[in-house]
Amino acid sequence: MKKLAYIEDLQQWMNEFSFSHGVRVRFSETDMFGHLNNTVPFVYFEEARIEFFKSLGFMQDWTQAGSNTIPVVADLQCDFLQQVYFGEELEVSVKAQQVGTSSVDLHYLGRKGNGEPCFVGRGRMVQLNKHTGKGEAWSEEQRNLFLSRETLKK
Amino acid sequence: MKKLAYIEDLQQWMNEFSFSHGVRVRFSETDMFGHLNNTVPFVYFEEARIEFFKSLGFMQDWTQAGSNTIPVVADLQCDFLQQVYFGEELEVSVKAQQVGTSSVDLHYLGRKGNGEPCFVGRGRMVQLNKHTGKGEAWSEEQRNLFLSRETLKK
Amino acid sequence: MKKLAYIEDLQQWMNEFSFSHGVRVRFSETDMFGHLNNTVPFVYFEEARIEFFKSLGFMQDWTQAGSNTIPVVADLQCDFLQQVYFGEELEVSVKAQQVGTSSVDLHYLGRKGNGEPCFVGRGRMVQLNKHTGKGEAWSEEQRNLFLSRETLKK
Amino acid sequence: MKKLAYIEDLQQWMNEFSFSHGVRVRFSETDMFGHLNNTVPFVYFEEARIEFFKSLGFMQDWTQAGSNTIPVVADLQCDFLQQVYFGEELEVSVKAQQVGTSSVDLHYLGRKGNGEPCFVGRGRMVQLNKHTGKGEAWSEEQRNLFLSRETLKK
Repeated sequence: MKKLAYIEDLQQWMNEFSFSHGVRVRFSETDMFGHLNNTVPFVYFEEARIEFFKSLGFMQDWTQAGSNTIPVVADLQCDFLQQVYFGEELEVSVKAQQVGTSSVDLHYLGRKGNGEPCFVGRGRMVQLNKHTGKGEAWSEEQRNLFLSRETLKK
Repeated sequence: MKKLAYIEDLQQWMNEFSFSHGVRVRFSETDMFGHLNNTVPFVYFEEARIEFFKSLGFMQDWTQAGSNTIPVVADLQCDFLQQVYFGEELEVSVKAQQVGTSSVDLHYLGRKGNGEPCFVGRGRMVQLNKHTGKGEAWSEEQRNLFLSRETLKK
Repeated sequence: MKKLAYIEDLQQWMNEFSFSHGVRVRFSETDMFGHLNNTVPFVYFEEARIEFFKSLGFMQDWTQAGSNTIPVVADLQCDFLQQVYFGEELEVSVKAQQVGTSSVDLHYLGRKGNGEPCFVGRGRMVQLNKHTGKGEAWSEEQRNLFLSRETLKK
Repeated sequence: MKKLAYIEDLQQWMNEFSFSHGVRVRFSETDMFGHLNNTVPFVYFEEARIEFFKSLGFMQDWTQAGSNTIPVVADLQCDFLQQVYFGEELEVSVKAQQVGTSSVDLHYLGRKGNGEPCFVGRGRMVQLNKHTGKGEAWSEEQRNLFLSRETLKK
C-alpha cells in the first residue's frame, strides 16, 4: 500500500479505532464493472459517522426540531485499496483524529471480513450555527465526549 | 407486451403524453448484471414528475419556506419492458391521468432513443396539509393548470 | 388503510410472512421534506428479496461466474402507508405469493419498530436464460425450495 | 476560501478547465437538512469524468465487451465550499492535471449558475489490465488524446 498523507503508520492508525459499524454491500450498490461503485464508501462513511456521533450522544441534539446547530461536512476523501463485491460484510470504523474549536477531523477505515482494509479515508466536519452560518465552538460537554471516546481507544 | 391493468390501448396511451424530461443513464445507476438497476426508474419518475409540476407552476409553491401543503406519494408502480444500459438517453414522459379532490393519478412512460418504451408506470400523489396531515383539495387554479396541460395533449 | 388489489385480508396477509430482513434508514436516504425518500423502499425490497433468495439458496447460483440464468424484475409496486424517518429500524419481510413456470410473484411488507406496516408492495420476478433471453422454468429443486419456505410459514 | 493542497492559485486553476458537464440537483439527492447530500458530488464527479473520457474517446474502449483494460478509481476527494440546493443547475468541469504511466490525476470543479464554485475535488484513476490486475500503460494514442485536451485548454 502506498503512503497516504493522513496516515503515518498504518498498523498503529488501525489500532486506534474503537468504534465500528457493520454494513453489507447491496446489489444496487454494485455497478456494471461488477464491484462496489466508488461513490458508495462515502455513503458508508456518513452512516458510520452518524452512528459514531449517536454513540457520543451528539446526533440526537442535531436532529431535534429546535436545534440551533447543524453538522456540516467540509471535506471528504477516500483511498480505495481493494475491490469490494456484492454481499460482502464490511466493518467501517470511525475515530476523531483531531478536535478543533468547532470542527473535528474524522478518520475512516473500511475492513473486509478477513480484517484487511479495503478503503480508508478522512474528512473534516464543522458544527455550524444555523442562524449565523458560522462555526459554533464545541461545548465543554461535547469536547469531553470526544475525549472519553479517545480514552476508550487506549 | 402483456396487458397492464392501467393501460387500455398502449398506442393511444402513449400518444396522450405531452410532457417529457430527458435523462442519461449514469454509470453508478447500473448494477453488476450490467444494466440499469431496477430501483432507478423510480428516481427518474420523481425527477420527471417534479419537472412536470414545475412546468405547471406547482412545485415552486410546495418547496417555498412558508408552504402549508406538501405533495406526498401514495403509491408507485413500474413495469420493466426492456433492459436499459449505461449511457442511454431516455425520454421520461408524465401525464395526469385522473384528477381527484386532493390527489392526482400520474402515469409515466420511459422511452429509448428509438422511441420504444422501456418502462411504464403510474402512481397517485396527494396534496397534504402540513398541519392537519389530511388531504388538501386542489385550488381552482391548480385544477385549471392540470386541465390546461390536458388541453395541450389533444 | 384503503383496500389494495393484491391484499385480501391485511392481517392474514401479514401473518403469512416468515422471512424478514432488518434495515436502518440512512441519513442519505431522507430528502428535504424530512422523511425517507419514496424511491428507497424499492432499494429495501431488492435487499430483502436477495436475502430471501439467499436463504433459499438461489442467489448463489445466479451470481456465480458460469451461471446460465439470471433473475429479472418484471414489475414492482409499493403502497406508502406511513412516513418513515431517519434512523428508524424497519423489518422488511418477503414471501413468494405465487410460483409460476419461470416466474414468482413476491410480496413485501415493511414494518416499523412498533410492528405497524409503513409500506407494502409486490412484484414479479422472472428467471431468464442468459443466452435465449427467454424464461427458464424453475427446476424441481427450486420449486421445492419455494414450497419448503411455504411450509415454514404455517 | 481556505487554501487547498491541490490548488495553487484558484483563479488560474479554474481557468484551466475546458470540459464541462451540466447536472440538475434531483429531489432524491437532497437530505433532511435541506441541501444536497454530501455523497452526491462524487456521483456528479463520476458522471462528468465519464463524459470527459467519452469526449476523448476512451470510455467506448473500456465498456466494450472484449476490452482488456478497465479504469479504476484509486482515490477521490471533495471540498465542499457552499451548500447546494434542490433544483440548482450546476456545471461540473473536469481536467487531466497530470498524466502518469498508467494513471491520471483528474481535477473537478462544480460551479453554480452564477459561476461561483460550490465544490472542488480531485482523484487519481488507473488503467488496469483485467487479466493481470496491474496498471496498463497509456498507449501513445491515449496520451496524445490527453495532451490534445490539454492544448484546448490554452
